[in-house]
Amino acid sequence: MATIVMKFGGTSVADIDRIRHAARHVKREVELGNKVSVVVSAMSGKTNELVGWAREAATLHDAREYDAVVASGEQVTAGLMAIVLQDLGVPARSFAGWQVPIETNDAHGAARITNIEPDLLNERMDDGVVCVVTGFQGISPQNRITTLGRGGSDTSAVAVAAAVNADRCDIYTDVDGVYTTDPRIVPKAQRLDRVSFEEMLEMASLGAKVLQTRSVELAMAQKVRLVVRSSFDDPDTVPALNDDGSWNGPGTLVCDEDEIMEKQIVSGVTCARSEAKITLRGVKDNPGVAADVFGPLADAQIVVDMIVQNISDDGKSTDITFTVPDSEYEKSMNVLTEAGKSTLEYDSISGSKGSAKISVVGVGMRSHAGVAASMFKALSDKGINIQLITTSEIKTSVLIDEEYAELAVRALHTYYGLDVEEA
Amino acid sequence: MATIVMKFGGTSVADIDRIRHAARHVKREVELGNKVSVVVSAMSGKTNELVGWAREAATLHDAREYDAVVASGEQVTAGLMAIVLQDLGVPARSFAGWQVPIETNDAHGAARITNIEPDLLNERMDDGVVCVVTGFQGISPQNRITTLGRGGSDTSAVAVAAAVNADRCDIYTDVDGVYTTDPRIVPKAQRLDRVSFEEMLEMASLGAKVLQTRSVELAMAQKVRLVVRSSFDDPDTVPALNDDGSWNGPGTLVCDEDEIMEKQIVSGVTCARSEAKITLRGVKDNPGVAADVFGPLADAQIVVDMIVQNISDDGKSTDITFTVPDSEYEKSMNVLTEAGKSTLEYDSISGSKGSAKISVVGVGMRSHAGVAASMFKALSDKGINIQLITTSEIKTSVLIDEEYAELAVRALHTYYGLDVEEA
Repeated sequence: MATIVMKFGGTSVADIDRIRHAARHVKREVELGNKVSVVVSAMSGKTNELVGWAREAATLHDAREYDAVVASGEQVTAGLMAIVLQDLGVPARSFAGWQVPIETNDAHGAARITNIEPDLLNERMDDGVVCVVTGFQGISPQNRITTLGRGGSDTSAVAVAAAVNADRCDIYTDVDGVYTTDPRIVPKAQRLDRVSFEEMLEMASLGAKVLQTRSVELAMAQKVRLVVRSSFDDPDTVPALNDDGSWNGPGTLVCDEDEIMEKQIVSGVTCARSEAKITLRGVKDNPGVAADVFGPLADAQIVVDMIVQNISDDGKSTDITFTVPDSEYEKSMNVLTEAGKSTLEYDSISGSKGSAKISVVGVGMRSHAGVAASMFKALSDKGINIQLITTSEIKTSVLIDEEYAELAVRALHTYYGLDVEEA
Repeated sequence: MATIVMKFGGTSVADIDRIRHAARHVKREVELGNKVSVVVSAMSGKTNELVGWAREAATLHDAREYDAVVASGEQVTAGLMAIVLQDLGVPARSFAGWQVPIETNDAHGAARITNIEPDLLNERMDDGVVCVVTGFQGISPQNRITTLGRGGSDTSAVAVAAAVNADRCDIYTDVDGVYTTDPRIVPKAQRLDRVSFEEMLEMASLGAKVLQTRSVELAMAQKVRLVVRSSFDDPDTVPALNDDGSWNGPGTLVCDEDEIMEKQIVSGVTCARSEAKITLRGVKDNPGVAADVFGPLADAQIVVDMIVQNISDDGKSTDITFTVPDSEYEKSMNVLTEAGKSTLEYDSISGSKGSAKISVVGVGMRSHAGVAASMFKALSDKGINIQLITTSEIKTSVLIDEEYAELAVRALHTYYGLDVEEA
């Protein structure tokens, strides 16, 4: 017997039929003798409708009222899920965030969970009742409804799992797991049986949109084991962790590195498109210069991705290159041109849109030298020019011309032996 | 300066444009120096959508979950109304029922308000903030969301008005007041400037669907003066009670009888269609027989309207006639036929559908003899046969053939001098 939190996203609860299908997954876990809490998103499209109304009501709106409006979507799903579960003979009740309570700070629209009181949930689960909790929301110290920001339901699920000390948090979504790369680019992409938190984190932030980065961070910090699987699966298919620790269920287990016996050198290849690169040449090389460059960009709400700074030739000036989304290119150029007129000193600024960032990710890299070198070799063999390189402990990323993105992903996927075996 | 509660129904908040129009009514009252709380319904159609989902989820659903689902509609409107008010420069915040709190019993789906804590609302109104409260809902002693039943937002508004000791509760709806009769039947129907609680109560329960009966009862008990007016009015038109107590605003003031100087003998003529009459002949005339008749009907959830029992000829048996909605006719006949086989003794049962109940209502009746007699005369003059008669202190009702309904209403409306003067 285990304690399990099951999370269903918007497409998995898009209408009553989908909710009923999801409820059958819940029923299976209950019948296996597990204690279950469920976290639900709003029905697909509903949050957008609510957001649309709030925007129509006023361009600049009180974030507290916005939260009260948009949080209602999950309240509807939670009640409907409880009704459907009861109809399937599974005792259930819904909990709005404020009823649990899920306590957050008062950063409305992007609140952070500060505490979840587990007692009520644990009591009801002990009574054999499935607790259906609204995702995406909580309550502020001022007793107002808060929301966690888009995609926050994953985070809610992980936080609930941590609070009730769950053995597993199952994230049901519209894909059947985490893949070595995007199957639309590489048909031979393989579903990973297991992936470590660190790898998942790199993949999530690199454009594999299966899980919210924030929820993976929380899962890693709280040691909550996640299973990513499809809600479209047959509800009678059981995800299972064997006694020897091996995973043979559907979906992908996201877990601590220690649980992964044979670590892949490279677990996946990711691709982020539409990156623009900007280079500042002849930036005065003294302490604080990086802050002078990136401070104004942060103030303008521009998210900078890769940053490369080389050692200067003369010890007096240096070149800095970084990437931003294509859509922020013009704005970034303007911000830095303006800054160049006051505090920031540089010789020239240049840049272009239309690059792609290709990354290889794997915890095995730590103990295997030469991954980066072999990556450059594989790309070179295909005649792909590398514009920028950055590395972390378990990831190597390169910036290339966007036109070569698919070619690069396929080449690296094959090179690292990730292609699925031919039948 | 006064304290005012303003209630807007579903059609008055059907979309953002309508909400903005309603908000201009609120802004007017604030600019007049009044303290204002607003009670809102769900956007028109939204509650039906939510109810539809709950029914689709399960035919028999947990009333607590049903309430959690359907109560979300008002939460959306309250937030949007607060946003729009702020956009118009009016400080405002929304309150869900549980935030006020509006305490109710735990009769989910048809809860009764037990207490409203006025402190939070009063504090905020003292600060110049408009409190936008979700109608139709509250919170049970078990901390679950409850709903008051359809149309409950009127009741919420009156209860909030009573709690904050408001000078007036303005009910904004899609008609511009209470009329002497249905203007679709009698084009010469007049809007009443004032009507007493008692009269309004009789009219509401007799088919004038402007206000929920329950809200009028509460208003009468708590002495909350109501104004019924149209939300489609020009928001700059001020409803006003003069210093001498006369009312010269738009809409209809529903108030204590004492506030009405010259009492009309008859204030209105109402009509309820599609009534079926059922007669039991030779019912044993002993104590408890009425309970034997109406108990089984109540158990079958059939609402009985008029009841007439004559003194028996022989002191041993009597005839009982009553009315039910046409739609309940067959069910009622079956219930009583079944009851006749066991506890209930009668000689014969008969009945028919297709009657209409016509009533004249007026507090002046109390002090004026002969209203009933003159009513029968007026109907007789038009050759209309009376099937049943019932009376109360301020109302006389007759049952007639439904074909004559419009004729009867027009005749009585003219007879009692209610027709609007020709221009």
